[in-house]
Amino acid sequence: MFREHVAPRLARFSSGVVYEVKKLWVAGLPESSVEQKIVSTYGSLKNPSTTILASAGQVEIRLTATGETTEACAATNERLASSLREILGDAIFSEKEEELEEVVGSLLAASGKRITVAESLTGGLIAERITDVSGSSRYFDQSFVTYSNEAKSHLLGVPAELFERVGAVSEEVAHSMATGARERSEADIAVAVTGIAGPSGGSDSKPVGLVYIALATDEGVQVERFQFPGARRQVKRWTSQAALNMARLALLQ
Amino acid sequence: MFREHVAPRLARFSSGVVYEVKKLWVAGLPESSVEQKIVSTYGSLKNPSTTILASAGQVEIRLTATGETTEACAATNERLASSLREILGDAIFSEKEEELEEVVGSLLAASGKRITVAESLTGGLIAERITDVSGSSRYFDQSFVTYSNEAKSHLLGVPAELFERVGAVSEEVAHSMATGARERSEADIAVAVTGIAGPSGGSDSKPVGLVYIALATDEGVQVERFQFPGARRQVKRWTSQAALNMARLALLQ
Repeated sequence: MFREHVAPRLARFSSGVVYEVKKLWVAGLPESSVEQKIVSTYGSLKNPSTTILASAGQVEIRLTATGETTEACAATNERLASSLREILGDAIFSEKEEELEEVVGSLLAASGKRITVAESLTGGLIAERITDVSGSSRYFDQSFVTYSNEAKSHLLGVPAELFERVGAVSEEVAHSMATGARERSEADIAVAVTGIAGPSGGSDSKPVGLVYIALATDEGVQVERFQFPGARRQVKRWTSQAALNMARLALLQ
Repeated sequence: MFREHVAPRLARFSSGVVYEVKKLWVAGLPESSVEQKIVSTYGSLKNPSTTILASAGQVEIRLTATGETTEACAATNERLASSLREILGDAIFSEKEEELEEVVGSLLAASGKRITVAESLTGGLIAERITDVSGSSRYFDQSFVTYSNEAKSHLLGVPAELFERVGAVSEEVAHSMATGARERSEADIAVAVTGIAGPSGGSDSKPVGLVYIALATDEGVQVERFQFPGARRQVKRWTSQAALNMARLALLQ
């Protein structure tokens, strides 16, 4: 605490000592995993000092360099940042404090691709985040909120027998939702989410926080299974982060 | 400030003096209008003291009574609250700090009715708020995010000629979106929003913040025109508040 927050501020009042902060934002890895991957690289360094902060679906690595000039500080931060980039690669999604929806939006705009979303448990949150970005109409034109089984069948063409056989919260339904959303919207990329936000609706085999996310592109469909922590809104937030991150990684390829 | 926040806290340390706060939450009226309607009623009272706080699409009237017992304070607050209820009527949507989506949800659950939403500028925010309430699957099963003209036609059946003739941000398109959403979802109530969230896309005749909201029920369709203040996210928030409030008022009838 003292080294991270107080010392750099005090340093500003000393003659000739300044500080600079650099932030690397990471998605798709839990805090413990980020820490484990990079601790041997930053742990022995006194300058810059490193702090790791986690929120739902996002980890911030904050480097704070002190030195005689702003430029010297920036160079000190950059030396460590360069090593961290080698270790973490694509897991770093922004060094400019951009939210995932902004990064995904920039990648979509640059590639000329369009995205759509089929949302069950998030209830519109992913589309809402995508359209929080000004200019999102260039790459987003429609999406589907399909809360009930009937809506998933009616709006996305999910076969009704799947609900009987494997249940709405399943790899198969996520797969079918993404495929249907992509076909019906004619978007290049479709992301579909189905899961249990809680507090009710969970079971031993399908607990609260269980979420399947499917991504459909012209390359095919991939589905990932997640178990997110927390209460209803946190599960929704985690899901939106993971969904946007899957879209981001697909757009990077 | 002192009277509202500091005095009541100090009072707790005096012997035999306690305080009680009561909050009335109002929607559908701007702060200035709430103030104008009730100032002659609360203005001359020293106990309870009254504060009016506004946020996007919502006004809080906060009564703070001081007295010898909690019960005496509650009675003092209730005397004024009773007068305010007579003046403001249905504009008061909660006295228990419930968000609009919770109030709308309770009304839907009690009436056995279902709601759907067709969202342009809000991009999923209204559905997201509705589904933030646990148990919302009882009255919400699907909704539509239709950002482009093509999506409004394709998913909701809005006639393409309307876009040419009156533009996407118009009473006619809002009307058609709500009608289409209600028919296609088979919901009892459909709310549709179309408008200009900004920062770009505005013009002299259709400035940023211009929003049309339509409500379709078995009684017919009503459309209201709004001019909301603020930047993109605030316009989205105002729109979601006004849309949920229109649904609430329809459910009260």
